[in-house]
Amino acid sequence: MLTVYSEDHALQDGKAELIDGQLLPCFEMPRRAFLIRDRVREVGLGEIVPPEDFGRAPIERVHDPDFVAFLAGAWDEWAATGRTCDALPWTWPMRTLRQIRPRRIDGLMGYYSFDAGTPITAGTWRAAYASAQTALTGARLIATGEQRAVFALCRPPGHHAAADLYGGYCFLNNAAIAAQFLIDGGAERVAILDVDYHHGNGTQAIFYDRPDVLFLSLHGDPAQEFPYYLGWGDERGAGAGEGFNVNYPLPWGTGFPAWGEAFEDACRKVAAYAPDVLLVSLGVDTYKDDPISKFRLESEDFATYGARIARLGLPTLFVMEGGYAVEQIGINVVNVLTGFEEARAR
Amino acid sequence: MLTVYSEDHALQDGKAELIDGQLLPCFEMPRRAFLIRDRVREVGLGEIVPPEDFGRAPIERVHDPDFVAFLAGAWDEWAATGRTCDALPWTWPMRTLRQIRPRRIDGLMGYYSFDAGTPITAGTWRAAYASAQTALTGARLIATGEQRAVFALCRPPGHHAAADLYGGYCFLNNAAIAAQFLIDGGAERVAILDVDYHHGNGTQAIFYDRPDVLFLSLHGDPAQEFPYYLGWGDERGAGAGEGFNVNYPLPWGTGFPAWGEAFEDACRKVAAYAPDVLLVSLGVDTYKDDPISKFRLESEDFATYGARIARLGLPTLFVMEGGYAVEQIGINVVNVLTGFEEARAR
Repeated sequence: MLTVYSEDHALQDGKAELIDGQLLPCFEMPRRAFLIRDRVREVGLGEIVPPEDFGRAPIERVHDPDFVAFLAGAWDEWAATGRTCDALPWTWPMRTLRQIRPRRIDGLMGYYSFDAGTPITAGTWRAAYASAQTALTGARLIATGEQRAVFALCRPPGHHAAADLYGGYCFLNNAAIAAQFLIDGGAERVAILDVDYHHGNGTQAIFYDRPDVLFLSLHGDPAQEFPYYLGWGDERGAGAGEGFNVNYPLPWGTGFPAWGEAFEDACRKVAAYAPDVLLVSLGVDTYKDDPISKFRLESEDFATYGARIARLGLPTLFVMEGGYAVEQIGINVVNVLTGFEEARAR
Repeated sequence: MLTVYSEDHALQDGKAELIDGQLLPCFEMPRRAFLIRDRVREVGLGEIVPPEDFGRAPIERVHDPDFVAFLAGAWDEWAATGRTCDALPWTWPMRTLRQIRPRRIDGLMGYYSFDAGTPITAGTWRAAYASAQTALTGARLIATGEQRAVFALCRPPGHHAAADLYGGYCFLNNAAIAAQFLIDGGAERVAILDVDYHHGNGTQAIFYDRPDVLFLSLHGDPAQEFPYYLGWGDERGAGAGEGFNVNYPLPWGTGFPAWGEAFEDACRKVAAYAPDVLLVSLGVDTYKDDPISKFRLESEDFATYGARIARLGLPTLFVMEGGYAVEQIGINVVNVLTGFEEARAR
């Protein structure tokens, strides 16, 4: 399987995130992508190529152009106030407050974000841009038929980013940008299967009223788990999109038997939808030792579900999302991909 | 002038707030109220009495009972997760996310707050409760005619707290609770004049559609300044409350000449409204050396505007709000009160 990868991801190297009442070192760090790349090489998964540059246009098919311009300029605005540490938002326009964009960067960050754990740094925009181009390159390789399956080694991740909202370590929604690119290129139906431990709230929100993108997500129950305010079982899509959003909220402590059952149901729904392309939002924070997650998958379980994805027989784009048990991340991610490849070869 | 004051304020002693991308020591600290109390004694302003206890009922006339129950139990829920540092929210249900209350305390805090600068500690509820009772006691003393003017030395402050939202160092809206108490006791019209540097977004939101409470606020322009998303000049009230909300957003660097002009306009509007009682949300962060604010009032200006308030000739309840130039806070606050008393005596 071909991997698309840009070293620019390392430009996003935040110092700290607000969690547990403290500023702790960022769980989302460059080493994550380096170790995945190393493992791809180690097992000989296939060629690693850099992304092509599709510009901002396909990004703005999913994200509000004002939001994109904000992301591109936020660090400079923050630095212009004389502050040198990472930019973290600290106040938000919650109910009774207006959805209005103030002039000052502090107010703008609150308007465009939903957590205090996603630092904007000097390199954030270049890293997020490269990550989106990585997913787009994977989508192009599949759209043209050059590849039947591609691994877009995206970092920073994307699935929490909505049309005009960043958070959850995500700035641009790489999977959503790739899905829209495929549809703009002629695909009639795209399915996005999100196996990250956290609900893909951004992806859901972007496609919630559309039938041409089926979104399915297995994740920690939002009653207990970030992002808390989306990912509940009763969210089935709206309007023309009714029935094309499927959430599987699962309780803390879920292991592979129960996870695999929900996954099997999701795979059947993907098959019934018969998409032109399958996107997998691939987070491996379902792993038992993930420091901020509470599922109990073993490393071999990743190979098992990778094989199940292959049996769908669909053109498949894997888009990297979360996973914070860093020392094991390469093994777990590549287990999905080799599980997929081995089943496909059979 | 009589002062109402409870030592319980000191139970709110947060360690840090998120500001400028860092966790910095809380600007809102017990020493603020201690120094104001000391200055009240030093100048012999009058008797200092403890608050009476009116229970939760008058608080719940303004705040959602579920919100009040949340505040009362939040620390215990946080501590039950094994965390010992102050509780700071870190994610919020912004647009595209649902206004839904998850089970976990982290999600609940985000649901009920609008910033990451307002720590919940083991003593927060008792301090906030005592602060509300302090304002209520002042209101009762005025309602019964026992006093013509009272200083409610409230801490934590209140004017940023909305019906079900805390933030900006505020948990319960002391001034709003007092105003509602006065109206429930028979007052037909109450005016709240908010001279804190920051817009009183909570007070505005609570009374926005009501003609029986006139709210006027002089503050840093929200385009530049916290709370960013409310306090704009076009917010004039809604429905029956149309015309009963008056904002004076003023730019960074505003000194007493320009501030005093806006203040004079506000005083004329108060006089025209002819309220039964005037509440003053008294923040002295308009002071030139305030560390988080950008107006330029001198200490003597506080006495000048205190005298102007006295010339309105109204029963007046001063409710303490912000002010973070701590070493000068006693002088500035008590200057307002002695300026008021001296003008009243003439």
